[in-house]
Amino acid sequence: MTSARRYTLSLSCPDRVGIVAAVSGFIASHNGWIVEAQHHADQAMQRFFMRQEILADSLAFGIEEFGHQFAPIAAQFQMDWQITDSAKKKRVVILVSKPEHCLYDLLARWQSGELDIEIPCVISNHEVLRKFVEWHNIPFYCVPVTPETKPAAYDEIMQRFEAVKGDVMVLARYMQVLSPEMCDRYFKRIINIHHSFLPSFVGAKPYHQAYERGVKLIGATCHYVTAELDAGPIIDQDVIRIDHSDSVEDLVRYGKDIEKTVLARGLRYHIEDRILVHGNKTVVFR
Amino acid sequence: MTSARRYTLSLSCPDRVGIVAAVSGFIASHNGWIVEAQHHADQAMQRFFMRQEILADSLAFGIEEFGHQFAPIAAQFQMDWQITDSAKKKRVVILVSKPEHCLYDLLARWQSGELDIEIPCVISNHEVLRKFVEWHNIPFYCVPVTPETKPAAYDEIMQRFEAVKGDVMVLARYMQVLSPEMCDRYFKRIINIHHSFLPSFVGAKPYHQAYERGVKLIGATCHYVTAELDAGPIIDQDVIRIDHSDSVEDLVRYGKDIEKTVLARGLRYHIEDRILVHGNKTVVFR
Amino acid sequence: MTSARRYTLSLSCPDRVGIVAAVSGFIASHNGWIVEAQHHADQAMQRFFMRQEILADSLAFGIEEFGHQFAPIAAQFQMDWQITDSAKKKRVVILVSKPEHCLYDLLARWQSGELDIEIPCVISNHEVLRKFVEWHNIPFYCVPVTPETKPAAYDEIMQRFEAVKGDVMVLARYMQVLSPEMCDRYFKRIINIHHSFLPSFVGAKPYHQAYERGVKLIGATCHYVTAELDAGPIIDQDVIRIDHSDSVEDLVRYGKDIEKTVLARGLRYHIEDRILVHGNKTVVFR
Amino acid sequence: MTSARRYTLSLSCPDRVGIVAAVSGFIASHNGWIVEAQHHADQAMQRFFMRQEILADSLAFGIEEFGHQFAPIAAQFQMDWQITDSAKKKRVVILVSKPEHCLYDLLARWQSGELDIEIPCVISNHEVLRKFVEWHNIPFYCVPVTPETKPAAYDEIMQRFEAVKGDVMVLARYMQVLSPEMCDRYFKRIINIHHSFLPSFVGAKPYHQAYERGVKLIGATCHYVTAELDAGPIIDQDVIRIDHSDSVEDLVRYGKDIEKTVLARGLRYHIEDRILVHGNKTVVFR
Repeated sequence: MTSARRYTLSLSCPDRVGIVAAVSGFIASHNGWIVEAQHHADQAMQRFFMRQEILADSLAFGIEEFGHQFAPIAAQFQMDWQITDSAKKKRVVILVSKPEHCLYDLLARWQSGELDIEIPCVISNHEVLRKFVEWHNIPFYCVPVTPETKPAAYDEIMQRFEAVKGDVMVLARYMQVLSPEMCDRYFKRIINIHHSFLPSFVGAKPYHQAYERGVKLIGATCHYVTAELDAGPIIDQDVIRIDHSDSVEDLVRYGKDIEKTVLARGLRYHIEDRILVHGNKTVVFR
Repeated sequence: MTSARRYTLSLSCPDRVGIVAAVSGFIASHNGWIVEAQHHADQAMQRFFMRQEILADSLAFGIEEFGHQFAPIAAQFQMDWQITDSAKKKRVVILVSKPEHCLYDLLARWQSGELDIEIPCVISNHEVLRKFVEWHNIPFYCVPVTPETKPAAYDEIMQRFEAVKGDVMVLARYMQVLSPEMCDRYFKRIINIHHSFLPSFVGAKPYHQAYERGVKLIGATCHYVTAELDAGPIIDQDVIRIDHSDSVEDLVRYGKDIEKTVLARGLRYHIEDRILVHGNKTVVFR
Repeated sequence: MTSARRYTLSLSCPDRVGIVAAVSGFIASHNGWIVEAQHHADQAMQRFFMRQEILADSLAFGIEEFGHQFAPIAAQFQMDWQITDSAKKKRVVILVSKPEHCLYDLLARWQSGELDIEIPCVISNHEVLRKFVEWHNIPFYCVPVTPETKPAAYDEIMQRFEAVKGDVMVLARYMQVLSPEMCDRYFKRIINIHHSFLPSFVGAKPYHQAYERGVKLIGATCHYVTAELDAGPIIDQDVIRIDHSDSVEDLVRYGKDIEKTVLARGLRYHIEDRILVHGNKTVVFR
Repeated sequence: MTSARRYTLSLSCPDRVGIVAAVSGFIASHNGWIVEAQHHADQAMQRFFMRQEILADSLAFGIEEFGHQFAPIAAQFQMDWQITDSAKKKRVVILVSKPEHCLYDLLARWQSGELDIEIPCVISNHEVLRKFVEWHNIPFYCVPVTPETKPAAYDEIMQRFEAVKGDVMVLARYMQVLSPEMCDRYFKRIINIHHSFLPSFVGAKPYHQAYERGVKLIGATCHYVTAELDAGPIIDQDVIRIDHSDSVEDLVRYGKDIEKTVLARGLRYHIEDRILVHGNKTVVFR
């Protein structure tokens, strides 16, 4: 990946002859330099997916004019499409509960520039991570969640998310089930890390479930949140080997290492516009 | 692992002080040379597991006398125990349907001496693999299975298994659900390879299920067969990474590679008496 | 991947604006249906790589006419290019020594149709695998290799390879170092599986070397053969975890599982024209 | 692993009959409750290795008396041995340069109690990480290293290490080659993370070397530091898959994830006294 400014065009449409020719012809006609390009034709769905990274400086015009000129082609092929600008960093709001490993990991990646994002605030239902977050000069909001206050709490979270113009919400081990309204409102904009190899061990205490079942590998799954618990489109997964000598506490400890890695990978794919969702599945152009 | 003749003592018992001292003291008092030893104390179950490999030549007596002399210790600690002799090869009956990859793989390992077993026969519900099996000078029995003939077919399989004095039955992609009676009768003696990462995707067509769910890794699971479908004690598992560009046919193809590897590993653990079952879980002393 | 007849166009050329547009425009103008497409722009080398799979039936003409019409575009962009027809199976000549695991594995994949190739003959420096090969109705030639007969032996192998119109030679644990002439003559047409994670442990007895060094993972590497030993372009690699309890014999046994898997993957990439070589590196469009 | 106070006995000695019996008999005679036990008999070296974790409360005496009473057995079998107390936390001095990922990761694990250690200070040749370290209330010392000041700098580091009674020094991407004297003086007490799959790519810029060679997996290696660069006993290793589309910068980024995981695993093994070194290899009782 280059660090130069890029526009990223991503789209999907019914599959037919000539899509690549039309899109690449359009880009070439404006002298656009493509640094990365991926396609996928889903034969079962007869749908075509494409992602193109173009050097911003190679085009004679800006992103708005690009969109304006591209619109007729998009219409012709019935495309769902978007174009984004790498100079406009995604604004990522992180939600956490008490476990700190994913938060530490995300902030380390943000500090070092590995994750090229802005973090306008961190929201938690507990106070414990306030100081660590604030030390990084990131605003921290504690929004307690109890069975009674849940609706009000989620309203507050959504207001804060809107107020800071958040692009994506990351549940970095947030441990609370969001309301269906919230899931629907921000579909494809809330990323969760679930600490099991989905679809195994949905819901609470997946490491305990894994221990009881006696599996020989445990996993973690990064997915978009939908109203159905732990059933949204999967972005990435990974596993680690365990054996009979490992207690539930050992599984929790091993699991943290894959949770944070898988979440960071999934978030990276999202902020680089590498993920296209179709139905309940993802196309991830790595 | 040495190739010299070994006795393998494996046992489990309620956990308490002095078990290792008693067993190792007994072995040492008879000058037994231990080449491999493993323990596991399950703290949740308060149960102790142990496996010892002893050079046969280092003892002044044979396996029967060993058992005779060890019995009082076993009684004192309420042990479930067994001792086996590496000179007595396990007799492995392989059941297959039409897919040949696991069978080819097992026969290659047997031919080369990697799997130190006898294969008294192969049983299939189809004729297609007869010639390949018979070329290896292994008897092949075709026992067709239809909804009506199922009970008779399973009776015939059990009779053949008994007739050849089989120690263990390996379902090398056999694709038939065994009767509960058969599962109970040969508990811990029937090994299956299921083509998913259990407990995900139980039952038929797991690769289709995986494709529909959009997982990013697919797996295979080697387990002991019990009456509840795909729910027996897990021996080993593994996974392989896939992505959106893979069709169901690709998953089937990738999956074969892990199926045969995981099945061969699980069978090896079994024939080397490395697996102790407790409840629905396994202790595997690798 | 579809099983319908496809033409596969693969090419590389100096990177510049308009390559994709030109190629996809050409294909679209002839109504070609693209089922799979990949690009890669190597920024360090300023070189562009592309692979396109086109449904044969979607074109109005055959592969020769395709080449004829495409030639001007290829010339304009200074392309190294080729187009192949999936209906013309690759002819794979397998060379083996005594270890049988890779051969069994390749023949199983060929038997089942997983590897869509022809195997016109197997060549070995030993007799031991003759019967197994011939049982599959594949001609087997024993060409012994001694220090004195080496040049003559290699001449015979090359003659046999030419006589059967071989496309690619697979060293399925052949254990002999080929002559520089042979390596040069069949550059990008000889695939070897080396039983280490290259560039570690070049040359003889890599598992012994790995054991001595005390590594915690062992590997296998599939690569094109060049005159410099074990230094050719790497196609694929994989590793497996070991520990202190594993002897050299255990490493050999574990290693076989990755050797055969990695070799089969590499061969598959080759026969599907997924590999483009540049310098001493490969672009593999999976 | 239990969190109760434990004594850990680890030892190696020439292999012979009766070692386990002697040690376990001794422990049992004092009513010692063993929570974890591992052995390994290295057949090539004819050497025996053992690790026993005993609940402190199950013994009638403390660690000193244990040592006193065990000494005759140790002498009889010519044991190299030690016994440690889980209540006495290891004091870990961390050395870093500018890359922060390993430091963040170690501090997160220490904060959460996952790594049960004390960190008396962090030493760096740069100032950049001072504030982050000090925010955690850990003293930070900047000891610049230039070609001229190297000997004085290393003297200062050793003095600081001694002054804080350090048990182990962790090079968390320290990027400086230590002096042979320092390596010898603290043999088995300095842990390094090297960013390649050793023995491939020793020395500087291993990701560049890996990129040039065109490998398909990159790795990281945690090892004890010896005077020969990157050649000390290997504690743990891991790898991650890459492909032709990854630039050197991508390798660096992927590599960080395995570097920090492998370093944390290796350090954990060390502080739990799970590593026994023999020659240039390790026995790691996980």
